[in-house]
Amino acid sequence: MPLRHGRPAPARPVVSLLTDFGWKEPFVGLVKARVLEACPAASIVDLTHDLPPFAVEAAAFWISRSFQYFPAGTVHLCIVDPGVGTGRRILVAECAGHCLVAPDNGLLAPLAALEGTLVRAVDPAYLGTLGPVTPSATFHGRDLFAPLAGRLAAGSVRPAELGGVVGDWARCTVTGSLVEPGRVTGSILFEDSFGNLFSSIESKSFVASSIRRVRVAGRDLPWVRTYGDAPAGSLVALENSFSVVEIACVKGSAAAVLGVGPGEPVEVILSS
Amino acid sequence: MPLRHGRPAPARPVVSLLTDFGWKEPFVGLVKARVLEACPAASIVDLTHDLPPFAVEAAAFWISRSFQYFPAGTVHLCIVDPGVGTGRRILVAECAGHCLVAPDNGLLAPLAALEGTLVRAVDPAYLGTLGPVTPSATFHGRDLFAPLAGRLAAGSVRPAELGGVVGDWARCTVTGSLVEPGRVTGSILFEDSFGNLFSSIESKSFVASSIRRVRVAGRDLPWVRTYGDAPAGSLVALENSFSVVEIACVKGSAAAVLGVGPGEPVEVILSS
Amino acid sequence: MPLRHGRPAPARPVVSLLTDFGWKEPFVGLVKARVLEACPAASIVDLTHDLPPFAVEAAAFWISRSFQYFPAGTVHLCIVDPGVGTGRRILVAECAGHCLVAPDNGLLAPLAALEGTLVRAVDPAYLGTLGPVTPSATFHGRDLFAPLAGRLAAGSVRPAELGGVVGDWARCTVTGSLVEPGRVTGSILFEDSFGNLFSSIESKSFVASSIRRVRVAGRDLPWVRTYGDAPAGSLVALENSFSVVEIACVKGSAAAVLGVGPGEPVEVILSS
Repeated sequence: MPLRHGRPAPARPVVSLLTDFGWKEPFVGLVKARVLEACPAASIVDLTHDLPPFAVEAAAFWISRSFQYFPAGTVHLCIVDPGVGTGRRILVAECAGHCLVAPDNGLLAPLAALEGTLVRAVDPAYLGTLGPVTPSATFHGRDLFAPLAGRLAAGSVRPAELGGVVGDWARCTVTGSLVEPGRVTGSILFEDSFGNLFSSIESKSFVASSIRRVRVAGRDLPWVRTYGDAPAGSLVALENSFSVVEIACVKGSAAAVLGVGPGEPVEVILSS
Repeated sequence: MPLRHGRPAPARPVVSLLTDFGWKEPFVGLVKARVLEACPAASIVDLTHDLPPFAVEAAAFWISRSFQYFPAGTVHLCIVDPGVGTGRRILVAECAGHCLVAPDNGLLAPLAALEGTLVRAVDPAYLGTLGPVTPSATFHGRDLFAPLAGRLAAGSVRPAELGGVVGDWARCTVTGSLVEPGRVTGSILFEDSFGNLFSSIESKSFVASSIRRVRVAGRDLPWVRTYGDAPAGSLVALENSFSVVEIACVKGSAAAVLGVGPGEPVEVILSS
Repeated sequence: MPLRHGRPAPARPVVSLLTDFGWKEPFVGLVKARVLEACPAASIVDLTHDLPPFAVEAAAFWISRSFQYFPAGTVHLCIVDPGVGTGRRILVAECAGHCLVAPDNGLLAPLAALEGTLVRAVDPAYLGTLGPVTPSATFHGRDLFAPLAGRLAAGSVRPAELGGVVGDWARCTVTGSLVEPGRVTGSILFEDSFGNLFSSIESKSFVASSIRRVRVAGRDLPWVRTYGDAPAGSLVALENSFSVVEIACVKGSAAAVLGVGPGEPVEVILSS
């Protein structure tokens, strides 16, 4: 569904940020400065800035699993942009009442593929209005993306004024699994801060009650509902809060205990 | 003193956050999204999200030494929650005009023990109203704690409406020392980002003017008022800004120079 | 130009923060608590808190390259303060419509040296009004700087009320290069999160079109406009978005590939 422009503006516009800029330098702060310049009332929320540099797939995973928890009307600015300074396009997507802004490199692919999403490529002539007079060649986050997101959040420009709808946005595959009789196979996507291992297997690809066990790194793990269902130190598998199969160690780090990481095969074994 | 509900609402509600979620994934951002959904005017302040995983004692130390610097009426959401998804209770405490929300695992113990604090256990039936329809079993921060804190900050619910006052909240000991004639003994609690060593010895447990020296790791350190009272590289002991005895190295890292960490004994030697 | 006090207050005051406090403890959160106490409407933006401890030069570099992107009227609070608790002065500078607050240790030197900047030393008697009754000797960020910045942002005090204009503020040299016929020489200042190497050579010290190549660590690198102008893995030199010569590796880390860091000589070779 496109943004409902007819409704009254919310009390405070919300802008979420998802980047690989890190916190060491003031890159994120400068993006916020220019969002606030264009939209002084904005409430700005950091999703994360610690994505591995250039990790488009991880950015695509997280924004597609996060945007829906924000108030409708939020503008989500997502910048993982190895092509900064080249001719790669800037996209603005309208998805389920939210607005998303990102470079055209696959980051928005999971959302762009949803029924009802409208994806537009921002007209380069419009980018020229975002100032400063000459944007830098290396920091479009500050010079182009931030004022664009700020104007969208402030309502000073609407997506439809930015450019035409496009269908040839860059593709990107994030989750995925092979469903066969009696089993579903996928692999580890990444390790989170607690050492939990997120897999590529969507929990909607099977019926939880039919799971017998989950196999990873030569071990068979029980399927549980929550971390508290097994004693400390146990390895378990469960549906996590982002709707994928997760391998966890109760009050510990599954990544450390198993010694595995991204790419490791995962097999969900179903009762036949 | 309980929250003064009769006073006019402040211009902008403040919500502070203290968790062990880290910044690598968007966990903190999703908590903020749902706080803003319930309380669009909220000003959200991160205390820290870099507590060691499951470090209930450190969380208890920091919130009890931090909440009082916020404007009265602030809602403090503290989530270090190894028991997520189990039947552990969610507590809401009213303390000196502030409101605190946390799992019942000892995190609130230092504040709950204060004269005048009211601690309530949130009725599970109320949690069912916080949506989404089925909260996840692994991310109550996003699914239960955040909307609860947001509603409290917005004034859409009052603590007294959430559940009854309880006295059997989980206990937790953080600071502590042994006071004997001529000396006070304790141990190192943790190392901060500068390499300063926080001890368990409350500075109120002795009279500063009676200190002769502080002994740690076989060394006798002078007692100073501030880092600038000794030359660069000196090891010193002082009352820090959180009211405990601290071991510091002027313009350096005491932890690195002494090679000690949590648990190391500390002895304050008083003039007899 | 001094702050234009006659103009209407902006909808929301902005306060930026730049410190070496890190995120591990709630130091930054407590600064924000006290800013909000003095200025409930403030929008607070983190520039960075991950400066190396006591890195006054890095702080001076970043604030002088960052403040101008914020809305006019922003109060920038910069705390890298190895002299905390000593008699070092606290400065308030008015520069191009912005207000900057920092200890007098060189941090503000690049801005203080600009034509039109007014630098004031805050009267110690005024500091005594900032409360709590006795400020700690080790955390002036929370006890003095934050309420001062908050009052300035709220407009409850004006710089001219804080103390007299001074000219003997501490000096600090950050960028610098030697311009000779056919070449400009400088050195590496630091490595950013992407492994890009920032040099001390201001891009305004030469005409870009006259560059033949840039020499660092025994290698001759091509001069490009943007990262996308060379294939992945290439080492290049370019004018970065903070107006200094940068050594970069396309989609990689120049610091890792070259194995060099701060202090390494850099030579820009110009066509004769």
